[in-house]
Amino acid sequence: MPGSAERTAIATVCLSGTLEDKLAAAAAAGFDGVEVFEPDLVASPLSPGEIRVRCADLGLTIELYQPFRDLDSTDADRFAASLRRAERKFDVMTALGVDTVLVCSSVSPDAVADVDRLAEQLYVLAERAGARGLRLAYEALAWGTFVNTFERSWEVVARADHPALGLCLDSFHILSRGSDPAGIAAIPGDKLFFLQLADAPHLSMDVLQWSRHHRLFPGQGSFDLPAFLAPVLAAGYRGPLSLEVFNDVFRQSDPTRTAVDARRSLLALAEAVADRVPTLGAGPGAPAPPRLGGHAFAELGVDDAGAPQVASVLAALGLTRTGHHRSKPVDLWERGDARVLLNTTAHRAAGAAITALGIESADPVSSARRAEALCAPVLERPHAADEADLAAVAAPDGTEVFFCRTDTAAGWRSDFTPTGASAAHGTGITGIDHVGLTQPFDHFDEAVLFYRSVLGLRPESATEVAAPFGLVRHRGVRDADAGVRIALSVALLRRGEWSPGVVAPQYVAFATDDVLATARAAREAGAPLLAIPDNYYDDLDARLAPDPGRLAAMRELGVLCDRDEHGEYLHVSTEVLGGRVFFQLVQRVGAYDGYGTADAPVRMAAHRRLRSVRSRR
Amino acid sequence: MPGSAERTAIATVCLSGTLEDKLAAAAAAGFDGVEVFEPDLVASPLSPGEIRVRCADLGLTIELYQPFRDLDSTDADRFAASLRRAERKFDVMTALGVDTVLVCSSVSPDAVADVDRLAEQLYVLAERAGARGLRLAYEALAWGTFVNTFERSWEVVARADHPALGLCLDSFHILSRGSDPAGIAAIPGDKLFFLQLADAPHLSMDVLQWSRHHRLFPGQGSFDLPAFLAPVLAAGYRGPLSLEVFNDVFRQSDPTRTAVDARRSLLALAEAVADRVPTLGAGPGAPAPPRLGGHAFAELGVDDAGAPQVASVLAALGLTRTGHHRSKPVDLWERGDARVLLNTTAHRAAGAAITALGIESADPVSSARRAEALCAPVLERPHAADEADLAAVAAPDGTEVFFCRTDTAAGWRSDFTPTGASAAHGTGITGIDHVGLTQPFDHFDEAVLFYRSVLGLRPESATEVAAPFGLVRHRGVRDADAGVRIALSVALLRRGEWSPGVVAPQYVAFATDDVLATARAAREAGAPLLAIPDNYYDDLDARLAPDPGRLAAMRELGVLCDRDEHGEYLHVSTEVLGGRVFFQLVQRVGAYDGYGTADAPVRMAAHRRLRSVRSRR
Repeated sequence: MPGSAERTAIATVCLSGTLEDKLAAAAAAGFDGVEVFEPDLVASPLSPGEIRVRCADLGLTIELYQPFRDLDSTDADRFAASLRRAERKFDVMTALGVDTVLVCSSVSPDAVADVDRLAEQLYVLAERAGARGLRLAYEALAWGTFVNTFERSWEVVARADHPALGLCLDSFHILSRGSDPAGIAAIPGDKLFFLQLADAPHLSMDVLQWSRHHRLFPGQGSFDLPAFLAPVLAAGYRGPLSLEVFNDVFRQSDPTRTAVDARRSLLALAEAVADRVPTLGAGPGAPAPPRLGGHAFAELGVDDAGAPQVASVLAALGLTRTGHHRSKPVDLWERGDARVLLNTTAHRAAGAAITALGIESADPVSSARRAEALCAPVLERPHAADEADLAAVAAPDGTEVFFCRTDTAAGWRSDFTPTGASAAHGTGITGIDHVGLTQPFDHFDEAVLFYRSVLGLRPESATEVAAPFGLVRHRGVRDADAGVRIALSVALLRRGEWSPGVVAPQYVAFATDDVLATARAAREAGAPLLAIPDNYYDDLDARLAPDPGRLAAMRELGVLCDRDEHGEYLHVSTEVLGGRVFFQLVQRVGAYDGYGTADAPVRMAAHRRLRSVRSRR
Repeated sequence: MPGSAERTAIATVCLSGTLEDKLAAAAAAGFDGVEVFEPDLVASPLSPGEIRVRCADLGLTIELYQPFRDLDSTDADRFAASLRRAERKFDVMTALGVDTVLVCSSVSPDAVADVDRLAEQLYVLAERAGARGLRLAYEALAWGTFVNTFERSWEVVARADHPALGLCLDSFHILSRGSDPAGIAAIPGDKLFFLQLADAPHLSMDVLQWSRHHRLFPGQGSFDLPAFLAPVLAAGYRGPLSLEVFNDVFRQSDPTRTAVDARRSLLALAEAVADRVPTLGAGPGAPAPPRLGGHAFAELGVDDAGAPQVASVLAALGLTRTGHHRSKPVDLWERGDARVLLNTTAHRAAGAAITALGIESADPVSSARRAEALCAPVLERPHAADEADLAAVAAPDGTEVFFCRTDTAAGWRSDFTPTGASAAHGTGITGIDHVGLTQPFDHFDEAVLFYRSVLGLRPESATEVAAPFGLVRHRGVRDADAGVRIALSVALLRRGEWSPGVVAPQYVAFATDDVLATARAAREAGAPLLAIPDNYYDDLDARLAPDPGRLAAMRELGVLCDRDEHGEYLHVSTEVLGGRVFFQLVQRVGAYDGYGTADAPVRMAAHRRLRSVRSRR
């Protein structure tokens, strides 16, 4: 086998569709090779020889044929049947032009417990494989009857001691059992025939179900994949970095999108162990993520009906229209470090929608080059010769992400002609705390990895809340200084027809040091603050016993309050504008680091009620 | 408290929507009362007094306020805060007009382990509750820190010995731990303050997650609810039969539908313990399910384009057009005991769809009366004075289910004028083996319970297969004699935009004693049998080593083969007709009792490929 862990591969089982769909998607995303998952081949009208040609045409090598299950048996007839079955599969492999087959440890009740006898059976098959120029990569399934740790599989392979027999290591099977991967470094590198990589969230469930439904691409879950990969490379593994991810969502999503997400995960992982895989990573010269400095702006696309409504609410919240773009129908609204662009370019949005995020980068050009190296779609943006050339990429939900600097003369603000009105300063809004973006069902984990790898943000723990129309998952991503925060959310099940409420609006949360004063001033200026039921405040009183005067003010203004061991979070929302967007005023007290998701159901019910009331008028 | 376990209730947490939606749905389904789930109240704009009025207007009693969590504490300040919190909740209860609150065992690290001290803290709260005419129903959560079995909760309650303190029993918490409910019978009935019922599938996962996401209504899962309920009633429980089901799908489905499903589950459960709850069950005089005799017919709605295509395929399969309905545009096709109605009534279907099932009932009138008593929508059917008055109800997916007799002079066949052509007999099709119906995502478990309770069919174990465009769950329902079989299926996640294949077609599977001969004759007559890839047969040979001649015939005809310890299942499909329907020829060998679901992905990929090929032409 050529190379030195420089190649990337993906198992066809990771992707949705037929084998033909999967191969095309893997090639389009830039993978070097694939693992052919047997059920995909069995359902394909292409013969193994035709699949070989198809892969060659697409520039893909076939790195592995998998899986071969339940080889060993205490029953001689069954073992003989396994050998017969294997010979048929060797025929397929020869026609495919692949030399390695994954042999899983048996999960059968007739599996062989005795290490010598098991090694003997593996030796018999290895002899047959070797005679045909093939080899076996033996893998311990985490739920194998007797062999379920990499240490045990290595014991068996070492005992058999056949050149056509080596190991396949799978990060899920090893990390899901809490095994320490450090010991892998002691295995001879030439006995590491194959490596399968998968991440996963920490779940407390049957390991087989966990494996079959909830695996994720590296960087999307909770496993420490760099710590796993390091000893594998240290041992001298020279095969491809290959992904094997069973995931219910990916199994039914557009494979072209999933394959790009998958390849991005490997590029980011390789970067994390870059000293060991010098030619991988985000490509030669791909820069590390520059330091981010906060939210430069949030852009809302608004139509003719939405524009005046959003503008009047921004004014009531205390923002001022300070500039107008020199060549585009875009207004700049500001207060403190909070900046909102209202873009009325035709067809940019129906009603109102968050269309772009401006992120302060210490080096916007490097940020954009990094994004491109990590497979983010770079957006071509027409601009006049004297206007700033803003670097922008598309996030998985279509939101445009601009890398920019607000504090330089040639920055994006120079494209705006001042209106002469200066932004008010004072006790009100100080900046953008975070932006809340509802993600498309098929792309939630992709979005987490996008922000983590492309922008260098840190994913927080996922939380789930029971919202009025179904469960909603929340996961924040933020930079180390918490200057940039994006709150991602998604319905746990794709919504059906029964969701008569507001459909998952997006929002911009403005930071304030005194939410009660700011909310009161906003309401007096006409901001449509969302009314919250008295029952909520009675419960708040029962749970947290806040100061009565403060409770009364919160009740009056519709301010919600979450408290944890780190501090308190006070937040108030406006009504939904243009059908899809609202604003929040938020105040963090102490070291509170969340987003008040526990109160989201109350906010959602209030938004829905308003919609019902309005539609009855 | 009045009554003697004659009332039905439902916790608002079972249903989707706001509190107002939930109350309306519960009342419309005929429940007598509700448990008010605190988060629903907290998010409601109605004051507790207004909720009381709303419930009274709807004819609902409020049976329980829930939950009160983490009462006890080893920390005196925390326990004092719990008492303060409880007093606030007693205020809410008084305004609601409910006298019982559910107190869960603590899940906190500061929970009290010592039984005497715990009983003492419960006594303190019971004193306060009793002073206000209220009472506490103490429940052991399956994951409680120290109290997590009903035996332990009873020990604490008995120790406290306060008239305002009793038990709440929840079938999930008890059965999920594998506890034997028989011991409940020894608890004094007047100490059983409340009963919550839930079913669940057997899952090997963290019990809290299992409880919070996967509960089902009684009869939909794997728990033996009658065996649980019997000792509770034997102990003298006199409160309502109340449902508390946390389910991800129900949480986002139309609550009106879910509430009917829920009430049906209680009626069927009460029927199963009818000797102990005489006034419940399927209502006075509701008949037991009459014996079923097989599939009388399957009706396909076809439009002008679909009609000739379906008719030509039926003819090629060996069915004959033997009759025409006297007043409606419906043809009868037959072979052996297989009968298919082709209905060209305008707008009944676009292309082709299975619109009705005829089920042979020993007593069609009783079947229909039973269905109505179990909340099935009875269909009004216009018919001429001299035509059969067929009793029909709508299944959850909208399929019409007719109860009928084929063998009587006044049966449904007398409405058809014979064409003079007699149905062929011989080695071909002998009847309908089963019908495959793809269910709407939100109504899969509802469908299982519908067929179980209304028709008296037996649900089989659910299986999941990895289909090309996502995971698909299958669950069969059948009568004791296996004369009636319906194969239900649903995508594990609601499908999104990426599913370019055939969208989940329905099918009618015809039984044959010799699938190879029947398929060959059908193909020679022009039936469009679905071609299956060679790779499938190479794999079949590797796995099962069938007789080579037989394998060659299967390969030639596209016959798929599943084998298990009971026997073998041979099945071949036609292409999809009218965009939504296909036919199968199936042969059961030995005692094979499944539906060949393991081969479904191969069939689906073949159907999808054909569609791609056709759309390229």
